[in-house]
Amino acid sequence: MRLPKGFLASGIRAGIRKKRPDLGLIVAPDGANAAAVFTRNRFQAAAVTLSRNALKRTGGKLKAVVVNAGCANAVTGKAGHDAAKRVRSRAAELLQCSHDEVFIASTGVIGVVLPDKRLREALPDAITRLSAGGIDALSHAILTTDVGPKVTQAAFTLDGKRGRIVGVAKGAGMIHPNMATMLGFVMTDAALDPATLRRALASAVDQSFNAISVDGDTSTNDTVLVMASGKLGNDPGAGTSDFQRALDAVCRDLAWMIVRDGEGATRVMELTVRGAKTERDAKLAAHAVATSPLVKTALHGGDPNWGRMLAALGRSGARFPLKGVSLFAGKVQLVINGEPAVYREKDAAKVFSRERVPIILDLGSGTASTVVLASDLGHDYITINADYRS
Amino acid sequence: MRLPKGFLASGIRAGIRKKRPDLGLIVAPDGANAAAVFTRNRFQAAAVTLSRNALKRTGGKLKAVVVNAGCANAVTGKAGHDAAKRVRSRAAELLQCSHDEVFIASTGVIGVVLPDKRLREALPDAITRLSAGGIDALSHAILTTDVGPKVTQAAFTLDGKRGRIVGVAKGAGMIHPNMATMLGFVMTDAALDPATLRRALASAVDQSFNAISVDGDTSTNDTVLVMASGKLGNDPGAGTSDFQRALDAVCRDLAWMIVRDGEGATRVMELTVRGAKTERDAKLAAHAVATSPLVKTALHGGDPNWGRMLAALGRSGARFPLKGVSLFAGKVQLVINGEPAVYREKDAAKVFSRERVPIILDLGSGTASTVVLASDLGHDYITINADYRS
Repeated sequence: MRLPKGFLASGIRAGIRKKRPDLGLIVAPDGANAAAVFTRNRFQAAAVTLSRNALKRTGGKLKAVVVNAGCANAVTGKAGHDAAKRVRSRAAELLQCSHDEVFIASTGVIGVVLPDKRLREALPDAITRLSAGGIDALSHAILTTDVGPKVTQAAFTLDGKRGRIVGVAKGAGMIHPNMATMLGFVMTDAALDPATLRRALASAVDQSFNAISVDGDTSTNDTVLVMASGKLGNDPGAGTSDFQRALDAVCRDLAWMIVRDGEGATRVMELTVRGAKTERDAKLAAHAVATSPLVKTALHGGDPNWGRMLAALGRSGARFPLKGVSLFAGKVQLVINGEPAVYREKDAAKVFSRERVPIILDLGSGTASTVVLASDLGHDYITINADYRS
Repeated sequence: MRLPKGFLASGIRAGIRKKRPDLGLIVAPDGANAAAVFTRNRFQAAAVTLSRNALKRTGGKLKAVVVNAGCANAVTGKAGHDAAKRVRSRAAELLQCSHDEVFIASTGVIGVVLPDKRLREALPDAITRLSAGGIDALSHAILTTDVGPKVTQAAFTLDGKRGRIVGVAKGAGMIHPNMATMLGFVMTDAALDPATLRRALASAVDQSFNAISVDGDTSTNDTVLVMASGKLGNDPGAGTSDFQRALDAVCRDLAWMIVRDGEGATRVMELTVRGAKTERDAKLAAHAVATSPLVKTALHGGDPNWGRMLAALGRSGARFPLKGVSLFAGKVQLVINGEPAVYREKDAAKVFSRERVPIILDLGSGTASTVVLASDLGHDYITINADYRS
């Protein structure tokens, strides 16, 4: 895939990880406007703190993004902070820009200081290899426990001109409480100011990445960055509704790929909670059901075990009348008015055999709703995570 | 093991489950004082509703306990309620007592109405087989996904007399969000009034069963019942401190056995959160760390991956100063003042290779604390739960 005009990328091996690429570089030679959302975890990686502040200081402008895999450089104190700064400074020096114009991101093991020397020494090679087709190499270089790379694109019309968005992500995310870092980098050739980008990203993230990680439930390093090179040459004041649609689609695609690649996931539940008294009630209910290991293992087994879903709902803290609860798998109603519905087990099992299992939980007490994507819990998750560091 | 004086028990096959015993009966021929704690789940099984009300009506007295495995009879509406009542009535009839003196409990699949006919037809056989040594048969008849039965005992001195407590439990509990039902039945020959039993049980449960299920985070059927036959003949007004100690020990033993048998568990983390601002902060922190699948899989792999623990703490909602956080595995300090401590990986790995892994998380901001037990997350959990119903 080719990047939108105004962006180049590369991905190479810097030697943090054994035998796998681990350094990604994105450069906007003429600069780009940018906006980002970061993790709300109390423990934030050095890269998060540094990039958040840098973006504030530049007023939402950048020239490059340096991403490494293999080391999250989180909970590493001053040593980690200094190491990240040295990588940033070296990149700024090589690319002849200010260090605040270099956005950095990290993913990998927590508690280990970034081996910045390896990254600094590898940067010239990463710069040499920059190309408009380099997104594929980058998409591999930012992975950790992911099964495969995640890249998607969409087109839009803005001010009568046809523009493009390309997004790349890493993350093998079950919904909470998984904390495998999620990184997303979205590039467009549109000309949009940082404030417009911030609003557009906030809206897109809410329906995509936030639907797989639930508010505030994030790793030490989670970052989603959107960049606009302006090469499309549109009027920055033009209506952005079609751009927003395309951005939403790119973020949704990436979020879906993250859940689908959820560290051994074979099946994804798309859980809609509706009819809730408040959004808080909807989220409490969705959270309890989507994170229950018993629900997730049943999903893995293709077992429409709705009893486990209701048991999770019952302890969720959400307010609802027991008699108001309905539950559907696809079009099959499993629970009606808080009691078992009459249905054919075969029909329910069929819905649960799909790759994407749509579940609707109606609390029968209001109009608030929420949607979350949750992967199943299978053997591969254990294998991948039981001895991640060795 | 023999039951304390005044109790008989049996366990037989009623045919709810294939080839496994599924009906347990406890009888106190001369009656017993009793107190119970029940699940706080919004969806409560018919047995929970019926037994709670019955115990209220009798003022804390009972003559028999009927427990079945294989069917939780939860979320089964009026049909389930009526089925449970028929079992209770039949037991009362056969034992010649009021139906309120028959305490019932169920565990198994949710959403299926109790096959009460099988239980009613099996009751005469269960009564025939009652004996003081029948606790072993009963301990098998109440199991579901448990690997093995859980029975323990303790002795105490009350009013100068030597009494006994015998406890039996079922439950293969990971800490939240597992919802495998937990049932506990504790019998003593002490003479104690229902109010004293209630206080003693509340205190014992707080340090034992609540430390494995965290407040309010329970299945549809969870029940812990304590019964006192009075056969010891002590003065009911005597000091109960030694009785309390023994009751605490019995409940702690049972809770430990439940976690240790946690659906494939190979290792248990004993997590102490201390130095918290409030008890709520301590519990939020303990909950997030103990329920994180990433922490649990690392525990399974024997990997002292403290980064995952801190990442879970960071999103827990607990309040604490980042610089105040310390983390210990046994005597090995892993984190000091919010930063990695200097330690030998070998020493940390040694602690994590134990069957019981003691972890201390100090939030450095107060005096509140809490202790939870959490099992690891391994392959057997998936195997057991992915297709539980088939």
